[in-house]
Amino acid sequence: MNESGSLNISGWTCPRPLQNYPTIVLGHGSGGKMMADLIQHLFVASFGNDLLGQMGDSTIIDILAELKDRNSEKIAFTTDSFVVSPLFFPGGNIGELSIYGTVNDLAMSGATPLYLSAGLILEEGLPMETLGVVIESMANACRLTDTQIIAGDTKVVNKGHGDGMFINTTGIGIIPDGVEISAKAARPGDLILVNGSIGDHGMAIMSVRAGLEFESKIKSDTAPLSLLTRILLQTTHEIHCMRDMTRGGLAAALNELSTASNVGLEFHEESVPIHPEVAAACEMLGLDPFYTANEGKLVCILPESQAQRILSAMQSHPLGKEAAIIGNVVDSHPGMVVAHTAIGGKRVVDLPAGELLPRIC
Amino acid sequence: MNESGSLNISGWTCPRPLQNYPTIVLGHGSGGKMMADLIQHLFVASFGNDLLGQMGDSTIIDILAELKDRNSEKIAFTTDSFVVSPLFFPGGNIGELSIYGTVNDLAMSGATPLYLSAGLILEEGLPMETLGVVIESMANACRLTDTQIIAGDTKVVNKGHGDGMFINTTGIGIIPDGVEISAKAARPGDLILVNGSIGDHGMAIMSVRAGLEFESKIKSDTAPLSLLTRILLQTTHEIHCMRDMTRGGLAAALNELSTASNVGLEFHEESVPIHPEVAAACEMLGLDPFYTANEGKLVCILPESQAQRILSAMQSHPLGKEAAIIGNVVDSHPGMVVAHTAIGGKRVVDLPAGELLPRIC
Repeated sequence: MNESGSLNISGWTCPRPLQNYPTIVLGHGSGGKMMADLIQHLFVASFGNDLLGQMGDSTIIDILAELKDRNSEKIAFTTDSFVVSPLFFPGGNIGELSIYGTVNDLAMSGATPLYLSAGLILEEGLPMETLGVVIESMANACRLTDTQIIAGDTKVVNKGHGDGMFINTTGIGIIPDGVEISAKAARPGDLILVNGSIGDHGMAIMSVRAGLEFESKIKSDTAPLSLLTRILLQTTHEIHCMRDMTRGGLAAALNELSTASNVGLEFHEESVPIHPEVAAACEMLGLDPFYTANEGKLVCILPESQAQRILSAMQSHPLGKEAAIIGNVVDSHPGMVVAHTAIGGKRVVDLPAGELLPRIC
Repeated sequence: MNESGSLNISGWTCPRPLQNYPTIVLGHGSGGKMMADLIQHLFVASFGNDLLGQMGDSTIIDILAELKDRNSEKIAFTTDSFVVSPLFFPGGNIGELSIYGTVNDLAMSGATPLYLSAGLILEEGLPMETLGVVIESMANACRLTDTQIIAGDTKVVNKGHGDGMFINTTGIGIIPDGVEISAKAARPGDLILVNGSIGDHGMAIMSVRAGLEFESKIKSDTAPLSLLTRILLQTTHEIHCMRDMTRGGLAAALNELSTASNVGLEFHEESVPIHPEVAAACEMLGLDPFYTANEGKLVCILPESQAQRILSAMQSHPLGKEAAIIGNVVDSHPGMVVAHTAIGGKRVVDLPAGELLPRIC
């Protein structure tokens, strides 16, 4: 989909008042009639649900009933802002990215994602049609993940003081009874799995941003990992850590887990699935795929006894077809990640220092 | 406080790595070491609490225990992004505003605010010291309101694609047992109260933005209304509606409640407290104080039988000293707000059309 995608503003039946404004103006963030029109005819029309319909300063959730229904005690809470540039890229746009990003963070703690808020910061001059396409993508992503946007906020900043649109989503999920996944839970002897090939999202963004034409088109892997983690948790609750490999890629995720759990992590470079076109693009641009962002990939650390079952469960799902066991947890070098190279050597894989690919998400 | 306020970066003991960067650079949003330094030495140092310390992709809350402790069943959930310009204004800055804004939205549903997320979008080149002052203000505001920031996210956008900083806060509060406040609950015969004088925040922002020098300095009323609503709910649970009068001011709040409850609202212009310097500034700039933003003012609709008790409770609290009964709910003209003017006439007070004061919050 692109900015002139499938949505045609003249075909909108509901939002007649919106058609009078082909672009976002400061008044759309005013708290007045224009904002009310935007809320009523675009946001409520797309996201509409009973909770959002409360129209209060905050939304009331009967959370005790939700917990009882699921025999659960705990919720997960997470926030993420999305400033990706450009807004539309091969394989997705900022709208679905903003839903999947937060859904994935909830899923990484084993939670079933339920409720999201959406905070939009729009730049004056943003085409109304672009906003419409993004909102439609968000609504579709919610349907696919069984989540609801139940609270929202819209601000408009003057032209030249934003960049099209920024989106914050913050989410609540419920942790199933018996699930205890934590960044601090990796134990020596555990194995390390990934659910598929790495680096696609980062290279997809780079390809459009730099105006590069790779031999074969690289698409973002943007996807809702909650659909996969649901299957994994039906297989076993014995999962120690999960983390999605966004900014900083595999290297950042492993370093964070290694530090939090105070264990050493080792992986075999050759075991990590990488699409050849991504590997080629990384080489051309001098980037390291282990540090490149993903938006539909997770790393999972769990006891060796469960690894084959989880690997099979992953491989049986479209989001885990290329899953692989890539390494293991050791008690030597706590807080350090070590890669075994293809030629039999070892190297330390540190946190990235600064910025490899700015505004990747 | 101003940008060169009380905080001196060279006096920071913890964040030595931050001192190497006097301004924010793209690397601070990278997911790598620079971001880890920012999180560790600024955010965790300022906001630090056990929940934030989980360092997971999402934060796990034992919400069932929280509900049981308070004999409650429901939570409130709300989101708000802050894009106020300038970042520092008389009476406050974007930091405390971002905490109080979301705390106030929670308080308006009668909730006790507990947990907040903070999503920062920083512009490359933002002075580290400015960020430090804002974060310190956020931390102080959390202490004052007994809230905790338990999830965060930081993004950096290229210079010229943001405006210093934008902050999203999203909050969770617990609704005390027996409290049922709703935008839809106003009933004919109810009275309408405000907790004090209106228009101060809007005029404070205007004064610095336009470089105006009013005769006496107007300060923002930015304040945590949860401190006041706690007292009100100790007095009675028979409160039908509460709404804070932010963008669009008193007029927008009353119109929203009138529409949601499908009742008519009437108020007496002379009964609405307005500081003389705010009235004068509004007149000078051709602005209507009824449409001007507040950040520490609420409108409350409740049965006549409770009005005097609530008025007294408000007036006994620093945030309600100038509280007043300003009008009543009628069954004629549902969805419409009517003002009785000083000279004995009546006028319809509609939603503001477009934008009066952009980027007020």
